[in-house]
Amino acid sequence: MTPERQQQGQPTPALLFDTLNAHQRTEAIKSAIELGLFSVIPEGKTTAKEIAQACDASERGTRILCDYLVIIGFLTKQNDHYGLTPDSAVFLDKHSPAYMGGVIDFILSPTVTNNFKQLTAAVKKGGTASDEETALEPNHPMWVKFARAMAPMMAMPARQLAPLVDPEANQKLKILDIAAGHGLYGLAFAKRNPKAEIVAVDWPNVLEVAKENAQAAGVSDRYQTKPGSAFDVDYGTGYDIVLLTNFLHHFDMATCEALLHKVHAALNDGASSARITPRLPDSSVGLRTQG
Amino acid sequence: MTPERQQQGQPTPALLFDTLNAHQRTEAIKSAIELGLFSVIPEGKTTAKEIAQACDASERGTRILCDYLVIIGFLTKQNDHYGLTPDSAVFLDKHSPAYMGGVIDFILSPTVTNNFKQLTAAVKKGGTASDEETALEPNHPMWVKFARAMAPMMAMPARQLAPLVDPEANQKLKILDIAAGHGLYGLAFAKRNPKAEIVAVDWPNVLEVAKENAQAAGVSDRYQTKPGSAFDVDYGTGYDIVLLTNFLHHFDMATCEALLHKVHAALNDGASSARITPRLPDSSVGLRTQG
Repeated sequence: MTPERQQQGQPTPALLFDTLNAHQRTEAIKSAIELGLFSVIPEGKTTAKEIAQACDASERGTRILCDYLVIIGFLTKQNDHYGLTPDSAVFLDKHSPAYMGGVIDFILSPTVTNNFKQLTAAVKKGGTASDEETALEPNHPMWVKFARAMAPMMAMPARQLAPLVDPEANQKLKILDIAAGHGLYGLAFAKRNPKAEIVAVDWPNVLEVAKENAQAAGVSDRYQTKPGSAFDVDYGTGYDIVLLTNFLHHFDMATCEALLHKVHAALNDGASSARITPRLPDSSVGLRTQG
Repeated sequence: MTPERQQQGQPTPALLFDTLNAHQRTEAIKSAIELGLFSVIPEGKTTAKEIAQACDASERGTRILCDYLVIIGFLTKQNDHYGLTPDSAVFLDKHSPAYMGGVIDFILSPTVTNNFKQLTAAVKKGGTASDEETALEPNHPMWVKFARAMAPMMAMPARQLAPLVDPEANQKLKILDIAAGHGLYGLAFAKRNPKAEIVAVDWPNVLEVAKENAQAAGVSDRYQTKPGSAFDVDYGTGYDIVLLTNFLHHFDMATCEALLHKVHAALNDGASSARITPRLPDSSVGLRTQG
């Protein structure tokens, strides 16, 4: 019975304790990913002893962690043999093409989690209470980490977005990818459409990651970069498509509106209108000329 | 739809992300308790602005935190007015006799949470990776914090245990309360039965808390203490009841067996047998002579 369900009856402290101890779930999945538990089990190491040896860990610690992972839904257990759940097999086994374990390098990095350690101060202030330079400073190293760690998580939405915006994939297109990060959104277009040319905007340190990914995708010859702030850099003009993905949620409404004016001005003159699908605050926005 | 339910269908990263971000739930409830949100709402401060003013916080931060608390099940929201859920009203409003918010002083203290920050190292080692002195050192200050912070959580089980072990509450009883902590288990007997005399064993710094609670309960004249380790201190003999609550889970089986022999030897000579109900590892053990 989940705490949510218990709540329907008499008052119980179950949801409260589940929430007070929720941080333990995070630490458990983080440790399991760090130890590589989910990658040795499909190699046939299925007992606590075998997993411990393969992960260079103690048997006792491994058994306790694995049992907890069974309880919170990431492993199965039968007769002392642990197994992966369908989700774990797809997302947590390093052999899987959809492996996402690396996201912990970003979403559980001190840069991110330290802000939550000061949440009470942040609520009092109405903004971050961190002393660190903000994530919006030029060349903040967290965005390089983001570009590297979050790429596996963004591969699927990027693959799904391109055919929606460019279904034919046979026309010459000039595409602006703003705050490109890992570059996967723009690269998904370039890989499908051999006539697509990408111009990526981001901080220079982040664009190095995007260029690596462009090279790996074999489309470097159609991949240009414009280093700088999305708010300051000269985009140029004549774009058929502007990609503005996972970006607007960082800013207030007035800032977003000003940016969208700038984006619109960069679109192809032949555009009769722009198709905009903003979803705030968790925004993936695709702009495309109709023509 | 809970992540657990989503798991029954196609693989999704929902459970993974819910778990990776679970630490945010812990920080949110901790901040809400620290700010006293749940105590000002029943006083009629129900909008973000009113709550913010009463908690000396920003309206923006308060609104965002309250909305999140609605999502994770601790508040209700209708037309910009927040309300307590039945659980929050009972356990998180400081006006409630069952208020438990103070438990964060122990279960979310750095002494406890820092161990989880080093979980991967602990799994490798097979035990705590902390450099701090262990919780089993004499006079460790964490047990004073425990005794103060966790008392509200233990009040209910203590109240429920006493009538099970001493239903008549009218006979002279000598009761040994081992690792008494806040003292609430023994005190529950003393409050019901005016002929019950308690002997509490714990570290001297912890027994100060138990003595405070004995005084508050008006039973100091029937409350003695034996400072020291439960393993070393001379219990004396002739006890009718020995309380050994929430203790055995700290130790291995051999240590528990040796302790239970010592406990048994302290019981009343007239005892024909001892009624033992051990539940390992989350143990509340009641020993009582049948006589």
